[in-house]
Amino acid sequence: MAAIAAGVDVGGTKIEVVLIDAAGVVIARTRRATPHLITEPAGAATASVITEALFELLGDDVSLPVGLGLPGMMTHAGVLAYAPNLPSGNGADFVHLMEAHRPGQRFVCANDADCAAVAEHAAGSALGFADFLMVTLGTGIGGGLFSGGKLVRGSNGFAGEIGHVVVDPRGPRCPCGNRGCWERFASGAGVARLAREAAIAGRLPHLVEQIGDPELIRGEDVTRAAQEGLPEALVVVDEVGWWLALGIANMAAILDIGRVVIGGGLTQAAALLIPAARKHLDGMVEGGEVRPPIEIVAAHFGEQAGAIGAGFLASQSYPS
Amino acid sequence: MAAIAAGVDVGGTKIEVVLIDAAGVVIARTRRATPHLITEPAGAATASVITEALFELLGDDVSLPVGLGLPGMMTHAGVLAYAPNLPSGNGADFVHLMEAHRPGQRFVCANDADCAAVAEHAAGSALGFADFLMVTLGTGIGGGLFSGGKLVRGSNGFAGEIGHVVVDPRGPRCPCGNRGCWERFASGAGVARLAREAAIAGRLPHLVEQIGDPELIRGEDVTRAAQEGLPEALVVVDEVGWWLALGIANMAAILDIGRVVIGGGLTQAAALLIPAARKHLDGMVEGGEVRPPIEIVAAHFGEQAGAIGAGFLASQSYPS
Repeated sequence: MAAIAAGVDVGGTKIEVVLIDAAGVVIARTRRATPHLITEPAGAATASVITEALFELLGDDVSLPVGLGLPGMMTHAGVLAYAPNLPSGNGADFVHLMEAHRPGQRFVCANDADCAAVAEHAAGSALGFADFLMVTLGTGIGGGLFSGGKLVRGSNGFAGEIGHVVVDPRGPRCPCGNRGCWERFASGAGVARLAREAAIAGRLPHLVEQIGDPELIRGEDVTRAAQEGLPEALVVVDEVGWWLALGIANMAAILDIGRVVIGGGLTQAAALLIPAARKHLDGMVEGGEVRPPIEIVAAHFGEQAGAIGAGFLASQSYPS
Repeated sequence: MAAIAAGVDVGGTKIEVVLIDAAGVVIARTRRATPHLITEPAGAATASVITEALFELLGDDVSLPVGLGLPGMMTHAGVLAYAPNLPSGNGADFVHLMEAHRPGQRFVCANDADCAAVAEHAAGSALGFADFLMVTLGTGIGGGLFSGGKLVRGSNGFAGEIGHVVVDPRGPRCPCGNRGCWERFASGAGVARLAREAAIAGRLPHLVEQIGDPELIRGEDVTRAAQEGLPEALVVVDEVGWWLALGIANMAAILDIGRVVIGGGLTQAAALLIPAARKHLDGMVEGGEVRPPIEIVAAHFGEQAGAIGAGFLASQSYPS
């Protein structure tokens, strides 16, 4: 099928660029490392790299719309207002930066997890769900919400910062300034922290024996050992799954979502965490006996959901 | 002005019935005690009492639409699926019950806090706010959400159960089955619990001296003493205000609301809690430096917001 749009996902380490057709199938793709040069205006180095990548895929043809998914809080006007994982982009106006490089092309910017939600809603695991939650698990937790068939944007465009819902006010300090944010428990950082705590407390004896020092246990070690079926590692995965379920139950209480789609970069851990969260969720949801169970499923578009969704968002065919 | 609708707010103890004009002004009102007789079909005794009250205000005239605000989780079809504070109404289909009593009249049912949100959005403290949160403080906490100018209903109609967001998994047990739900800290029940804890811990010496026994301290005692300026009581109010702010910050992270409207029956305590919550909120909201402060204001329609909003919802003029 013909390309309908280009989609760009700007991450903390890499920039993924895709051309998609109307079904979200990737026709062509390229990738670049994210530059971290602080420039004036903000984001100029990143915009140059995106321009190079678009030239590779599109040449000088500016007829297709381009969507950019960005890692942070985006204003309605498309400015990246707050980007803790992309300091060089703080305050950047990527639409204007990109228009200067490629005059005549239409650019649209949105939060990366919102883009992932759009992809899953348009052609993925949330097709047909008017009310659902996209959870992107990476180092932290990103979120995209649909309510009544529409992406929830909020009064400033900042909706979906679900990783910073406080679930334990006496919990560990979060870089955002609060204590006990959900992403301290149920993200990549959460797996790492709970794994290390378990190792130090003597609850991962076999793994510590292999690695030599409880302080050196990483999240990946526990994920790998759990995949191999080591019971002590499965206990830690179950604990993270419990926290994942707790946060999902909170969203269900507020938004009454019918489905939760789990995406993001933590694909291997997610394959273990999804069944663990499912096991705990039903008993946590208020009035669980009078509502259909909430399904937790993996993202259809996997790690590419952000780039593909940015493309959908930019294409005229998607009502945002 | 002419009446546009009748609104009914069915609470755990009383039923409030109003006639409203297009500005939400109450033209006439009446009140009944809520019957708690368990009947077959469910809700029949309550429907009879509502019928009596409507006859008092409208006689046999069935031309005005009637909205019913009900204390529990309402399905899209208008069935009260789960009503912990109105057991006699569990499973009731009030639209059909009422139509049998008053054939030809149009009836609409919704959750009571959703009704309050509709009233405040249509003509009250949330006029002009497309994204806002209605918080009704009573024994528990109810919620109504607007996103993009629309009431958020959710996939089953159950959205807005904000009192059951878990904010402390090691906290006190909630009747819903979880631990540490928000309403265990920031509602009437929360004031009572934190007051009693403070009294037993020796942090309310003057109040205990007046009342004689720390076990007998009630929430109202602390509210009254705080109104009179007793420092030790103000500390407890501040603690409840901190929890209120924490829950509001959680909603802001998820929904990026521009305004929070506080209503419900806890009017006197709310007058103290609103400034206490305001004091704590700004420092809790993620990216607070890049977004306008979230305003916390009192409900314009006070305790009548539920009945008035039910009327607005029923009137053809309000898009729900």
